[in-house]
Amino acid sequence: MQFGSDNQTGASPRILEMLVQANDGFTHGYGDDQWCGRATSELEKFFGCTLEVFFVATGTAANSLALSCLMEPWETVLCHHQAHIVQDESTAPEFFSGGGRIVPISRRAGKLQVHHLQRYFKVQGNEPPHTVRTAALSLTQTSEAGLVYTPEELSILCRSAHEHDLHVHMDGARFATALAALGCTPADITWKAGVDVLSLGATKCGALAAEAVVFFKPDLAASFIHRRKRSGHLVSKGRLFGAQFVAWLRDDHWLDLARHANAQAKKLLERLSRFSAVSLQWPCDANEIFVTMPVGLSAFLHDSGAEFYEWPHHGLPAGVNLSDDEVFVRLVTSFVTSDEQIEQFCGLIAEFFLNQE
Amino acid sequence: MQFGSDNQTGASPRILEMLVQANDGFTHGYGDDQWCGRATSELEKFFGCTLEVFFVATGTAANSLALSCLMEPWETVLCHHQAHIVQDESTAPEFFSGGGRIVPISRRAGKLQVHHLQRYFKVQGNEPPHTVRTAALSLTQTSEAGLVYTPEELSILCRSAHEHDLHVHMDGARFATALAALGCTPADITWKAGVDVLSLGATKCGALAAEAVVFFKPDLAASFIHRRKRSGHLVSKGRLFGAQFVAWLRDDHWLDLARHANAQAKKLLERLSRFSAVSLQWPCDANEIFVTMPVGLSAFLHDSGAEFYEWPHHGLPAGVNLSDDEVFVRLVTSFVTSDEQIEQFCGLIAEFFLNQE
Amino acid sequence: MQFGSDNQTGASPRILEMLVQANDGFTHGYGDDQWCGRATSELEKFFGCTLEVFFVATGTAANSLALSCLMEPWETVLCHHQAHIVQDESTAPEFFSGGGRIVPISRRAGKLQVHHLQRYFKVQGNEPPHTVRTAALSLTQTSEAGLVYTPEELSILCRSAHEHDLHVHMDGARFATALAALGCTPADITWKAGVDVLSLGATKCGALAAEAVVFFKPDLAASFIHRRKRSGHLVSKGRLFGAQFVAWLRDDHWLDLARHANAQAKKLLERLSRFSAVSLQWPCDANEIFVTMPVGLSAFLHDSGAEFYEWPHHGLPAGVNLSDDEVFVRLVTSFVTSDEQIEQFCGLIAEFFLNQE
Amino acid sequence: MQFGSDNQTGASPRILEMLVQANDGFTHGYGDDQWCGRATSELEKFFGCTLEVFFVATGTAANSLALSCLMEPWETVLCHHQAHIVQDESTAPEFFSGGGRIVPISRRAGKLQVHHLQRYFKVQGNEPPHTVRTAALSLTQTSEAGLVYTPEELSILCRSAHEHDLHVHMDGARFATALAALGCTPADITWKAGVDVLSLGATKCGALAAEAVVFFKPDLAASFIHRRKRSGHLVSKGRLFGAQFVAWLRDDHWLDLARHANAQAKKLLERLSRFSAVSLQWPCDANEIFVTMPVGLSAFLHDSGAEFYEWPHHGLPAGVNLSDDEVFVRLVTSFVTSDEQIEQFCGLIAEFFLNQE
Repeated sequence: MQFGSDNQTGASPRILEMLVQANDGFTHGYGDDQWCGRATSELEKFFGCTLEVFFVATGTAANSLALSCLMEPWETVLCHHQAHIVQDESTAPEFFSGGGRIVPISRRAGKLQVHHLQRYFKVQGNEPPHTVRTAALSLTQTSEAGLVYTPEELSILCRSAHEHDLHVHMDGARFATALAALGCTPADITWKAGVDVLSLGATKCGALAAEAVVFFKPDLAASFIHRRKRSGHLVSKGRLFGAQFVAWLRDDHWLDLARHANAQAKKLLERLSRFSAVSLQWPCDANEIFVTMPVGLSAFLHDSGAEFYEWPHHGLPAGVNLSDDEVFVRLVTSFVTSDEQIEQFCGLIAEFFLNQE
Repeated sequence: MQFGSDNQTGASPRILEMLVQANDGFTHGYGDDQWCGRATSELEKFFGCTLEVFFVATGTAANSLALSCLMEPWETVLCHHQAHIVQDESTAPEFFSGGGRIVPISRRAGKLQVHHLQRYFKVQGNEPPHTVRTAALSLTQTSEAGLVYTPEELSILCRSAHEHDLHVHMDGARFATALAALGCTPADITWKAGVDVLSLGATKCGALAAEAVVFFKPDLAASFIHRRKRSGHLVSKGRLFGAQFVAWLRDDHWLDLARHANAQAKKLLERLSRFSAVSLQWPCDANEIFVTMPVGLSAFLHDSGAEFYEWPHHGLPAGVNLSDDEVFVRLVTSFVTSDEQIEQFCGLIAEFFLNQE
Repeated sequence: MQFGSDNQTGASPRILEMLVQANDGFTHGYGDDQWCGRATSELEKFFGCTLEVFFVATGTAANSLALSCLMEPWETVLCHHQAHIVQDESTAPEFFSGGGRIVPISRRAGKLQVHHLQRYFKVQGNEPPHTVRTAALSLTQTSEAGLVYTPEELSILCRSAHEHDLHVHMDGARFATALAALGCTPADITWKAGVDVLSLGATKCGALAAEAVVFFKPDLAASFIHRRKRSGHLVSKGRLFGAQFVAWLRDDHWLDLARHANAQAKKLLERLSRFSAVSLQWPCDANEIFVTMPVGLSAFLHDSGAEFYEWPHHGLPAGVNLSDDEVFVRLVTSFVTSDEQIEQFCGLIAEFFLNQE
Repeated sequence: MQFGSDNQTGASPRILEMLVQANDGFTHGYGDDQWCGRATSELEKFFGCTLEVFFVATGTAANSLALSCLMEPWETVLCHHQAHIVQDESTAPEFFSGGGRIVPISRRAGKLQVHHLQRYFKVQGNEPPHTVRTAALSLTQTSEAGLVYTPEELSILCRSAHEHDLHVHMDGARFATALAALGCTPADITWKAGVDVLSLGATKCGALAAEAVVFFKPDLAASFIHRRKRSGHLVSKGRLFGAQFVAWLRDDHWLDLARHANAQAKKLLERLSRFSAVSLQWPCDANEIFVTMPVGLSAFLHDSGAEFYEWPHHGLPAGVNLSDDEVFVRLVTSFVTSDEQIEQFCGLIAEFFLNQE
């Protein structure tokens, strides 16, 4: 019963196989190899445009390197208050940008909206060099609340951002589950909507360690190779990343993996909805479910071997306040989540409430 | 009619005189001179305790150097949402701390209160190294809204901060006007209340360029000399700062200067209160007045030669929304503000409203 | 004929197998998994002492993170003038240390010696905070000139470093080939000789991407987890590194791999010695050979499909100056270098000289 | 007998007077005042061209801010091995540049020469992003060895630098004494020779604390205001700097001050030349004298109240090695050095040797 995170699995068999296959033979080092070359070509087909693409091992590296290309050290990036870049990546954005700033603007809304941007610009001072300049907007797709931005929502946000001279970054650690949920093209929720650079994560959707920084505006990538090298993210045996992405993209393997994760989340959600004391806090758009539940239930589930995380309260919707005997919990499904796991988990919940009576 | 800022004057005559007097003769360089020595002794008398003291030219340098001694690059400092360190000093705190973070926690309250701290710790995640560690609380006295924290308020805040293992920094760019307003001892609103390090500004209260970083816990100052040097803030002819502080402290010169500024603010406030369309937004505790007024009045005053700043809307109290024909304005008095200036300014306002009728 | 670098191969079959084996099942993320746990235990057996160990993907990350734990931003690390940290890792040490400095002290000697340290301290100024403080010495084993430090040489260097209050870091990107060449224990050339922290590289000796930062003095590691996270080097699926190190250490697999590389270097060297126009510049202690050769020969070899790098002239011994028709070249053997490759390569050389006559 | 440094005096009377005069009245803050405006105009006349000029309080700030505009964090600046930026400013250049690097290339030569640049580029690797890019050359005029570069020498160096795509920075902490020694125009040894940006120091030549960063290529200054603010170097009462520079430039006041310093150095040198045990190590081109002398003499002079510094041995010419009973000493004259001081100092030396006999 593993609902802790979609990064607690290994790689999908097809990705592992490709890693084994790519192991043979000599290649040039440092990303200058045929596997990275093929992965780049495949990504250009995936997005339907020419790209500047760079591969790194972690989402934090992908996000921070991307953002550092969009901002000066005396500038800021705006984001959702739950954004991974501001809540879960230590001070990586500050480190990579040489001391830039991340400013959350959403308060307790589930998704960023244009009015958040408007309010920010209305109340902030604008006296450079005393006040900071705002350089970019960062969005997360699938969002940290498990919500998916539609192409229309993204277009509206990006248009507003561009009107304020902001670049737009997308943290796509769970890009695949959003895409699977929307059923649109990758282009529809990236460059066609106005996204300038994407951190495309495969790790949370079946890869072992493979993240791509995808620039839709190549000019923005000019300093990337220097930033990647001096931050220690230029891996010598680049086939490690290239092979994973080749496998992930081939025959829409990513889509199968993401669809499974989403489908299992829907199943889990449906089963949870039978328990009135387990209360859904955000719509489940992809593969994450956020619920409140009794403290006792959470303890019982953990004791029974279930894996999942209590979630910080900044992730609760506006106006929701927990009583002392409730906890806020995140449940994540992945490409390996089985029906049995879901049954077993919900069986335990039923057992708990039975014992309560 | 100069109400722009208390840093738009020269130095007080007595401070200037001391600078001239200190000009004679050889001294060792880089702060190792008799003037800095005397200033340090005087500050120890002023605060009634032993200190580590360092002099720099600007408030931004004082604040950022002080904070960088309290935090690691993967830590944060909490502050009021209007704090100068987060609104008006570019990304200096991030620069000096090597990429630490400043987190405003007050929303629209006038002063920081314990419940702001409590809410912050309640909703934030706590999963190091993913989440940031909180290292310090920074308070501003006189606050950016012109409010003065009482010794009791400070004690309560500092106690709560220390319970959360936070150091406490005070931005005292306008420390003197707060002290004059309270009529207590310097110790009462610093180390006795729990403040660990103070940026003590003389520049806004009669000096030319003189700020002291005052450590009440000497251990915290261990790296200061290196940080000051590598940031270019170790001035060779240290008498520049030493002499100003000696004059500022002698015979409570600072108090005369601060009292005058505060008294003139009270006079101005009293005169402004006669105009119902000029609406006070925060109590005037020291030498700053925040009002909303008609756009047309503001323009008329500026056109008539009055100096003051429109203020960003994040400085408005919660719930106050301006109509399009209002502006939010800050008026600052200083040690040279004359009754004539106040009369002239308020005369213009009266004239404006007369013409309106 | 691949003599470009020992990072142009894939992983050894046994390491790849272990990766496949480790792919099954759930683990906690971010290094908190059984594979990293096992790798750490194995490393403690390997070195014969308790350790603080952290895994990362690249040598640059390992070196820079290690050094950043040894120095303040206003301090320096001394190293050999050819050191990878100063010549080949962009400004990574400066980045990770928040602006510390790397100072090469060896001039054209092949290995660092105590007299280099002594001269440095003799001629440098010592007026803090104006002058920098020296914090650490970094050594490379196998060195960038392909030389191996003996346990005695290391002991003498480390003792001198410690007498000057320096920490000692070892860049062990090719630690295994040095160890294989010396036939001593891992402890003999690390903590027993006085090394405080080691960057232990497996990637250049048969792994896919696996580097360990090994602290022999656990106190020095206190900030590591924060530094690793905020630099984006905390990989979520930690089994990637754990499994590689488990396989690398099991049954002395590393030793077989390193011995093969060294043996092939010796074979290549022996064959090269027959050509008087190919001139060995440094003794070949492990798996790297540095020679000068005619420009024409180098071009012929490249045209014939041989892979190797021209090397910068700072790598030449003192007093060696190249004529315009010579080049300086590095040849590296690895765990997959075959006799056939050596024969083919030297056959081409013979052919070239035959055609010259 | 003050020969410690030219920053151990106060300000010249005329500069002090101007400070007093500038104290009256309101001005806008943060450099946007009439005194800074006038100083900029005067500097444009001084150099005979349009400029971007910024004022700061210290030479370290001026140098580091200037260099940070010329380099990316993954680039280096070349300089003389005695350069103040690499020997005496802690790690300020690394701090301000976000982790760039300073590389000394002169070894023991007195002045930088083109062959130093050529050798550097010949021996260094050039494999970006692994190797660093070289961004700029920094020269010091008057040099740290007290030597003055002629316009011709500067032209040749700058031309070579520009051919390698380097910007040229000049550290002019003692620019005035060089200019007085050469008798040429300011333009001749700056922009006409190829200098792109100058740190122009008045502090060591009669000011209290006044340094200007002078950009001859305005494009290079684009980020300066942000860098100055976030490093805490934007002083609110800008008249402090403006007034000093206005006085320093008016009626060639700087020239009188510099000529006096140089003349006194010549006198001191002439008197010292009578003592065969006091050995001149570098020609005295301006206001600094470098000599070796017996340890006993140095101690005697210090005991007798003379002020001067022992100098680090990296400042000795190539091939000069001190015996244990010798010290290397720097003597600096300034605008206030009197004949009496020189007489008294040399009288003590004579007395010492008399007693020795």
